[in-house]
Amino acid sequence: MAEYSTNLRVKLPVVCIVLEVILIILFGVLVEYDEETGAKKWHHKHSNDSDMENGFYYRYPSFQDVHVMIFIGFGFLMTFLQRYGFSSVGFNFLIAAFSLQWATLMQGFFHGMHGGKIHVGVESMINADFCTGSVLISFGAVLGKTSPVQMLVMAIFEVALFAVNEFILLEVLHAKDAGGSMTIHTFGAYFGLVVTRVLYRPNLSQSQKRNCSVYNSDLFAMIGTLFLWMFWPSFNSAITHLGDDQHRTALNTYYSLASCTLATFAFSALVNHEGKLDMVHIQNAALAGGVAIGTAGEMMLTPFGSMIVGFLAGTISVLGYKYLTPILESKLKIQDTCGVHNLHGMPGVLGAIVGSIAAATASTSIYGNGLQDVFPEISDHFTQTNQAVMQIVSLAVTLGMALIGGLIVGFILKLPIYGAPPDTLCFEDSVYWELPGEEETQHELTVVKLDEESEKLNS
Amino acid sequence: MAEYSTNLRVKLPVVCIVLEVILIILFGVLVEYDEETGAKKWHHKHSNDSDMENGFYYRYPSFQDVHVMIFIGFGFLMTFLQRYGFSSVGFNFLIAAFSLQWATLMQGFFHGMHGGKIHVGVESMINADFCTGSVLISFGAVLGKTSPVQMLVMAIFEVALFAVNEFILLEVLHAKDAGGSMTIHTFGAYFGLVVTRVLYRPNLSQSQKRNCSVYNSDLFAMIGTLFLWMFWPSFNSAITHLGDDQHRTALNTYYSLASCTLATFAFSALVNHEGKLDMVHIQNAALAGGVAIGTAGEMMLTPFGSMIVGFLAGTISVLGYKYLTPILESKLKIQDTCGVHNLHGMPGVLGAIVGSIAAATASTSIYGNGLQDVFPEISDHFTQTNQAVMQIVSLAVTLGMALIGGLIVGFILKLPIYGAPPDTLCFEDSVYWELPGEEETQHELTVVKLDEESEKLNS
Amino acid sequence: MAEYSTNLRVKLPVVCIVLEVILIILFGVLVEYDEETGAKKWHHKHSNDSDMENGFYYRYPSFQDVHVMIFIGFGFLMTFLQRYGFSSVGFNFLIAAFSLQWATLMQGFFHGMHGGKIHVGVESMINADFCTGSVLISFGAVLGKTSPVQMLVMAIFEVALFAVNEFILLEVLHAKDAGGSMTIHTFGAYFGLVVTRVLYRPNLSQSQKRNCSVYNSDLFAMIGTLFLWMFWPSFNSAITHLGDDQHRTALNTYYSLASCTLATFAFSALVNHEGKLDMVHIQNAALAGGVAIGTAGEMMLTPFGSMIVGFLAGTISVLGYKYLTPILESKLKIQDTCGVHNLHGMPGVLGAIVGSIAAATASTSIYGNGLQDVFPEISDHFTQTNQAVMQIVSLAVTLGMALIGGLIVGFILKLPIYGAPPDTLCFEDSVYWELPGEEETQHELTVVKLDEESEKLNS
Repeated sequence: MAEYSTNLRVKLPVVCIVLEVILIILFGVLVEYDEETGAKKWHHKHSNDSDMENGFYYRYPSFQDVHVMIFIGFGFLMTFLQRYGFSSVGFNFLIAAFSLQWATLMQGFFHGMHGGKIHVGVESMINADFCTGSVLISFGAVLGKTSPVQMLVMAIFEVALFAVNEFILLEVLHAKDAGGSMTIHTFGAYFGLVVTRVLYRPNLSQSQKRNCSVYNSDLFAMIGTLFLWMFWPSFNSAITHLGDDQHRTALNTYYSLASCTLATFAFSALVNHEGKLDMVHIQNAALAGGVAIGTAGEMMLTPFGSMIVGFLAGTISVLGYKYLTPILESKLKIQDTCGVHNLHGMPGVLGAIVGSIAAATASTSIYGNGLQDVFPEISDHFTQTNQAVMQIVSLAVTLGMALIGGLIVGFILKLPIYGAPPDTLCFEDSVYWELPGEEETQHELTVVKLDEESEKLNS
Repeated sequence: MAEYSTNLRVKLPVVCIVLEVILIILFGVLVEYDEETGAKKWHHKHSNDSDMENGFYYRYPSFQDVHVMIFIGFGFLMTFLQRYGFSSVGFNFLIAAFSLQWATLMQGFFHGMHGGKIHVGVESMINADFCTGSVLISFGAVLGKTSPVQMLVMAIFEVALFAVNEFILLEVLHAKDAGGSMTIHTFGAYFGLVVTRVLYRPNLSQSQKRNCSVYNSDLFAMIGTLFLWMFWPSFNSAITHLGDDQHRTALNTYYSLASCTLATFAFSALVNHEGKLDMVHIQNAALAGGVAIGTAGEMMLTPFGSMIVGFLAGTISVLGYKYLTPILESKLKIQDTCGVHNLHGMPGVLGAIVGSIAAATASTSIYGNGLQDVFPEISDHFTQTNQAVMQIVSLAVTLGMALIGGLIVGFILKLPIYGAPPDTLCFEDSVYWELPGEEETQHELTVVKLDEESEKLNS
Repeated sequence: MAEYSTNLRVKLPVVCIVLEVILIILFGVLVEYDEETGAKKWHHKHSNDSDMENGFYYRYPSFQDVHVMIFIGFGFLMTFLQRYGFSSVGFNFLIAAFSLQWATLMQGFFHGMHGGKIHVGVESMINADFCTGSVLISFGAVLGKTSPVQMLVMAIFEVALFAVNEFILLEVLHAKDAGGSMTIHTFGAYFGLVVTRVLYRPNLSQSQKRNCSVYNSDLFAMIGTLFLWMFWPSFNSAITHLGDDQHRTALNTYYSLASCTLATFAFSALVNHEGKLDMVHIQNAALAGGVAIGTAGEMMLTPFGSMIVGFLAGTISVLGYKYLTPILESKLKIQDTCGVHNLHGMPGVLGAIVGSIAAATASTSIYGNGLQDVFPEISDHFTQTNQAVMQIVSLAVTLGMALIGGLIVGFILKLPIYGAPPDTLCFEDSVYWELPGEEETQHELTVVKLDEESEKLNS
């Protein structure tokens, strides 16, 4: 039964090397520097006096914050499992490093071609990191139950589907979704949920004792949570129009998250019989305010509106973890390790609806000449209702793409060729990692001494 | 004795929800976008060509560094306690998320009203985070001995008092304090010390065994320390005048901190009988250089002057931890968990004095036309002596506000209604948190085996 | 045998205080604000309208990323050892705080004097952090086997030699090395390797049981790895020419690192009999792509070229850890704790070669008017071959300086006066740190109970 082996000595190197070689060849053929990164192109238009106008200075700090969210934020958020820290942060690293390259090609192919070439610069870097975020959300749904090879295969398909969906939403339907409530969060969450449904393991309870946290793993996870929370204003504003748009998006997100955090603490204590807080809620639900303001963040939502959105998001997220997740697992056979439905799924849908409502009320009396930046279609030929409808249609398209895509990809991933762990060894690093021995502590010394004494006594 | 219960199932949700609803209503009534975040306002004055002039690009990177200091810096710095990591990082998160919203209103009310409305943008975000920092300093003094409800109540009052004190210093007395040696550190530290004095627990020794660190908790705390240390140059320079002022402030802070670090290592080894370093000193005293340069950082202190200030700050801070803290506890009954007197109190006072001295020597021969930016009052109608005196008066006002405010708030917090932990359960996460089980390790397995063997032997 | 004592109560304070006092005096005599940080100088040339042109806004975000790499990146990367976390992150902190001050003077002396004064601002801050990075690389080679006093002495010499080497490469040979493949990585690695060779400990096996990681220490190390990985694009681009150069450098580094990560995972699985991944490889080799693109990052390497470089770097780095490090130790007596030869040494040399090749192909047909920015000498009077040769000569000079310098400094450090640990206590925090007691856990309670029972049984 070689195909059931978790030994990846051949599979992982082959997949990684083949993928990277293909990427390198495609980059060689298709990718070139854009107007701001190519020496000749930039200097053709700019003197050295205008070097400071390069978009690098206006986008790169946002990019770096997003980058931290992808690698530290998602990576450490998932280290909450007691014996899956290496895999969480390590496979997150691998999947992200692959996805950002592949996303550059896919996104470039669908909406970044210039004369047959894909142009790259800081905006393509941000967009690629965004797409990667979506893949990592899906990874959260299947965490602990899959092999890295399986996740790379998932990423191949999911990145492509993400790019198609993004193209339909932004280019065909002219929807607005700067922070990705739909394109990133809703898509990633429901895609991952369907995949984990298809990969349903009836005997997962055999690994149940490892499907929980320990004290230090929860603290490591809080590193992820806080970097996601702090940098979410940068995430939502990273690719909005420059100027007031970017500034306003960061501000709205900041208020949404702050409000969401109070709701999270409130409902976490409320749903516990002893009034005790649950780390799972704090680690995850407090972030829902960033997800739910993703679409409408750049709009004139006001701090007041942002805080309401955040409060609602935190509330539904905690309630989801408490009451919905167990039902999803027992009734619908959806084993959602990180609860992405509560953090990304429902708040993403909420975000899409908020965006639609905000679009329905947009007008020059509120936006002045800024309407052109936020809603070019309304400024041009759409009515507000048109835009609002397009936002909702976009949500429907996203859900459809995620469900159908997840279904197909789920069945592809079900093939017994990827070295996935058996039911008894889920949530366990030692399947794929050389683990270090345990710390030499007083405990051990005592235990060893006791052991010897016991042996003596026994004999 | 329901009021002594630590069960927060009713109290915490009620307080959080009521506070957030009040905040949302007040934001709805009072807050609006400023000239740089409102679409109509911005586009009324600017074409799209000038989007890059938006203050977002000149302040937001500083804001993000400050934000990291507040949530990761303060949060993880306090995880040094062995069984209080969830509470340290979690309550820090809750208190900060509340305080930054409340501070926006209070600071806006005292010095940001425009036609009856509070204007918000990146500067209000930075100022709100600053005020939050002050509350978190006070939190450090009472860490482990209070409930989250108590801390939220403290934050309500402290934020308001902070805003009043800040108003008096900056608007009435025309003092300079860009990095907040007085407004943030001195105020937060002495306010917290008085609160902890009023909340004195004579039987705290019953929890003494938990009032210390373990190996990994000290490493988690170093994450907090280092992010505070690295981003302190951004903190002190975040709201100075643009241009050379901001640049100089970051530079001065960088040198002060570097020098402080060497002093910290030197005196930490010196005060130990075996010459061994103490993690408490490294985690805290190495930061005193950032506190002590808070007021004078934007002045022409020179790198030379900055390094002297840093060296002094590190020295008094280590000596404070070693010799003063035990005396404060035994003689003055001040139980200062994190030693905020050594990190924020004394270095804050030192910073105020340095600021006064630097003001006394300011002149156009040193500042040129830049005098207007740093000392508009001297440039206008003050003598240097006027300014220097106002700086010292500001320190006195700050100390007075902190002491009286802390006294009143301390007695309010002494009411037995907030679910504070009993003396036997201080510094203990399990009071307020659902704790995970322990890691399944070889230890346990061995122990269990031994247990069984022993039982057999016993029988 | 007082000189063999590891008690640092006298030595460490004396060295730290004397060094800092000397630094303060030298800064007082030699250092002054530059055109962008001095109030009078800046305002002499600029009105307040042009404050936004201050270099602070174009360099400071890069500086902060570099700063995080130095203190969190290097500091936590080295916490992988089970009982050396305090020392790794603590001594890294001390050495870096000293080195950045000393480097400011040394680099200023060799290439920053203006009328007898060293000018400081954000560029000197970045350069000083760069030089510090080189010292920390050498620290990685001798990690666990040296005292902090020894490391400060090493830093004194290494910083000076770094500045000389940098001066020769950049000013005399007109080499390009923006990201420091040669000046920082090659120099730091080979310097450290020679030092650790001279300090060879034949009986180090007595501490072998502590020369490895535990589960949580590997997770702490991943914090270091990821911050290094994420911010490496900022590192390589921090001091390039503004505009397209900086933008392109960040982009190239981003692709090199992504490609390197896939190579690392591939070869890590391949070289293990069971196909299991090794955390040492993931923590280190995945970063080699940043090192190897240090010299050529600013050149028109194309994303395609960058990915090839990254892939090669990851490959040689993993293979180095697996096959070369054991040989270096057994045959050449080089005990390289962190494997800096694999992460900085070989990839640094690769980077130098790539830089030379890229220089050999530079022309106006590729760079347009941008050639002046990247290769002023080619644009002026060099042929491409001249430049390419100068790049290789620079590598040779760097290797020579590192080997000879390391040899001399190694013998200085061999004097038995620095309080280095004995062979039996290497990789052990308790030599230099007050360690906290162990966590009060169920384990202990059980163990204690068992202990008592065993005693009873024994009696």
